Amino acid sequence: MKLENLFKPKSMAVVGISKKNPLSPGRIIFVKNVFEMEVEVYGIHPEGGEIEGVNLYTRLDELPEIPNLLVIAISAEDTLDYVQVCADLNIPACIIIGGGFAEIGSEGIKRQKKLERVANDNDIAVLGPNCIGVYSPPLLDTIFMPTERLTRPSKGTVALISQSGGVLVDQFFHKFNEIKIGVSTAVSIGNRAVVDETMLLEYFSKYDKETSNIAFYLEGFKSNKSKKFLELARESKDTVIIYFGGLSEQGIKATKSHTASLSGNDKIISAALKQNLIVQPRSELELLTYLKLFDVLSHKRKLFDSNTIIYGRIAILSISGGHGVLCVDLLKKYGLFGVEFTEKEKKEMKELVNPVARNIASFDNPIDLTGSARDEDIENIIHYLSKIERIECIIVLILPYTPSISFQIGRRIANRVSIDKKPLICFIPYIQKYGMIIEALELSNIPVFHSIEEAVQAVSALRILTRRYNFKQRK
Amino acid sequence: MKLENLFKPKSMAVVGISKKNPLSPGRIIFVKNVFEMEVEVYGIHPEGGEIEGVNLYTRLDELPEIPNLLVIAISAEDTLDYVQVCADLNIPACIIIGGGFAEIGSEGIKRQKKLERVANDNDIAVLGPNCIGVYSPPLLDTIFMPTERLTRPSKGTVALISQSGGVLVDQFFHKFNEIKIGVSTAVSIGNRAVVDETMLLEYFSKYDKETSNIAFYLEGFKSNKSKKFLELARESKDTVIIYFGGLSEQGIKATKSHTASLSGNDKIISAALKQNLIVQPRSELELLTYLKLFDVLSHKRKLFDSNTIIYGRIAILSISGGHGVLCVDLLKKYGLFGVEFTEKEKKEMKELVNPVARNIASFDNPIDLTGSARDEDIENIIHYLSKIERIECIIVLILPYTPSISFQIGRRIANRVSIDKKPLICFIPYIQKYGMIIEALELSNIPVFHSIEEAVQAVSALRILTRRYNFKQRK
Repeated sequence: MKLENLFKPKSMAVVGISKKNPLSPGRIIFVKNVFEMEVEVYGIHPEGGEIEGVNLYTRLDELPEIPNLLVIAISAEDTLDYVQVCADLNIPACIIIGGGFAEIGSEGIKRQKKLERVANDNDIAVLGPNCIGVYSPPLLDTIFMPTERLTRPSKGTVALISQSGGVLVDQFFHKFNEIKIGVSTAVSIGNRAVVDETMLLEYFSKYDKETSNIAFYLEGFKSNKSKKFLELARESKDTVIIYFGGLSEQGIKATKSHTASLSGNDKIISAALKQNLIVQPRSELELLTYLKLFDVLSHKRKLFDSNTIIYGRIAILSISGGHGVLCVDLLKKYGLFGVEFTEKEKKEMKELVNPVARNIASFDNPIDLTGSARDEDIENIIHYLSKIERIECIIVLILPYTPSISFQIGRRIANRVSIDKKPLICFIPYIQKYGMIIEALELSNIPVFHSIEEAVQAVSALRILTRRYNFKQRK
Repeated sequence: MKLENLFKPKSMAVVGISKKNPLSPGRIIFVKNVFEMEVEVYGIHPEGGEIEGVNLYTRLDELPEIPNLLVIAISAEDTLDYVQVCADLNIPACIIIGGGFAEIGSEGIKRQKKLERVANDNDIAVLGPNCIGVYSPPLLDTIFMPTERLTRPSKGTVALISQSGGVLVDQFFHKFNEIKIGVSTAVSIGNRAVVDETMLLEYFSKYDKETSNIAFYLEGFKSNKSKKFLELARESKDTVIIYFGGLSEQGIKATKSHTASLSGNDKIISAALKQNLIVQPRSELELLTYLKLFDVLSHKRKLFDSNTIIYGRIAILSISGGHGVLCVDLLKKYGLFGVEFTEKEKKEMKELVNPVARNIASFDNPIDLTGSARDEDIENIIHYLSKIERIECIIVLILPYTPSISFQIGRRIANRVSIDKKPLICFIPYIQKYGMIIEALELSNIPVFHSIEEAVQAVSALRILTRRYNFKQRK
């Protein structure tokens, strides 16, 4: 089964275009691909004619070419007929948007079984049913919400696979946009009657060059396929992340009605994931922090080696005492700890900062250079800390509100890291006017976070990368 | 000691204005109050002359009036002389910006003791030293960072008292602006040599009519004063929240060098706070959620009674299955649980929604109306749930991305709640284009949150309000 046709079709056709209802899913999908995307797209309507100025064809076998992909957005009853047409015309892939299958109980389960049979017998890559399909920029987008109703992320290294369309759009698309994480391809798998998470994991990790990180929202593995999934994840060149929903007692009950899937036991799942190098964030914040870090560090140009965080030994550099305190408070929660400085080191650092700051700064860990710190003080201390071998990572907490910090500070930190190569994570409030600082860091692929907790989580994510790397090396 | 002079002075004077360095704290404070704030402000410089076009006076006793407040932004050595001038001229309040006191060790401790003596003997309300002072809009702002370097929150019901200037500006000001929490007055207490958190708690809860919620960032109580603080908090008409830093082992060490304060034991502090009705958020996210909820519900016009959440029995209404699952997963973490619906209730709810949604929706808790839901379906189900007495609160998860949800949905929910009076918390992604929906809800004081977890935290905050209310009633 060639999944590529779902994501990189030369051409696609859409059935289920309503002439009366401009908000019907099929019509939105057709019109959005015609006007917004690059794929060659054909609309099918039994009466032909046109819609919003675009010609329609009456039948699939009338098209100027056999499309590689058919999007079916019609009632459950009629859907199977169209899958049969795919079989007859050798259309190798289709996306089924509508519900009315396994998720509605006995009648739907029968229907879904029949669908599976036709698809498997004819080697058709069927995505769905009960899904929002595929977003594969700049080629195609079968999400049946008008583009202007949601926000889509930019192109990047993360492949997304979600069992919930809502989670795909909100926890991933919206939040990705907010914190600038890029997506290679996004897939809503719905009831995953044929194409499932395991097939997609294999496809993205083996065949998709744009992807370096594969993130899932799942409410349980497809039955009998978890073993294969775990194996693939362990072997994958890409980082694999699963955000699990429905692991609580009430959640398990809820997932049954919503995606016709079986959730597993929380602890068993977590242990299996860890053993197979799969990252399992425990909250939405952690999910996004991990993905942001993985995405940034997947870019080709790298300022530091992310595979060196073994013990979690951290130095914290701040210009606000309170921020240092809040940061050090959080280390333990993430299995990290602050190194202790020797008296000699403290004395040497003191010599490196300007006379005003020197007398009020504190050189314990967290280091607090106070509001009197200047750009060069921060740069000098980073340089000093970089030479201390037992420090594995520096967390820099920058509040660019004091007048003596200039808007060059981001660039200066990035250049310093580029020479010293010490892993470094920045906290800077994501405020528009600090954009110049944030951009300088991000252009150099230094990870920047919006809260102290995210910065700490990011170090913990770095350690996950190290463990993964070491595991792979040992083999 | 009259603290009012610190926040509502008729006039104030500033010493420590540098003619050479436009970024010196005293100069920034002077110039910002002249050009940006409403207070009558006088600048003192031994040579007189002018700065940025504004006349300066050479001495405090030459001013046209005795100011109510003196801001001292000079070296530690000279600071005491000016406090003595306050005593001589009967200036009842001063703010000491500079460091060089207890936080730097023995010499500074001596200096601070002397300062305390002069202040107490002469009944001068001294704020600081080592602080960023006061933001009391629209009257005065002694934060020595240029206004355009940070973001200030709008006027509201939360009084802020912080032991760290950085935390005040970042965790409070920046984040408040992001999620629209308003501030009555903000105070940075620094070393709290004279004016401390206990005096401020008393002032804001007894004498400040604009304040309904009092939020602290503390790294420990001032010694010998915690008992008084706890008593005041228990008796306070206002909600009292403390975000504690420096409770971890490494944090305790860090706070010593930074604010010369003693942190307490984590568990003892938490128990004491709870006993005295003080809310203690455990993360920045929780802090902000609590304050947002408290601020919204402090407004006069209230759509529902927030004192009715006793057991934490929740109904979840969603149009995305995944969101419902993630929400129900989170309930337990916050001591809440989803009610079970009877078969009769499920059937009745099913009758209330449009035929397309009806056949694919799920009426267990969480209710998933699916992407086929329309405004009136959501409204009807809220109305239905409102009549079920055992439901204490409804969490509504709205993704306004489906075409059948209109931009009126916020207004319709608000109007419904206004009639039915059932406590209701909304989740809607904070995306600019959803502003019309969010604004309709917020104008009616329905709390809206940006993530599912915050919505769940908000219900837990509602329950805190109920407990507080019941405790006060029993007395």
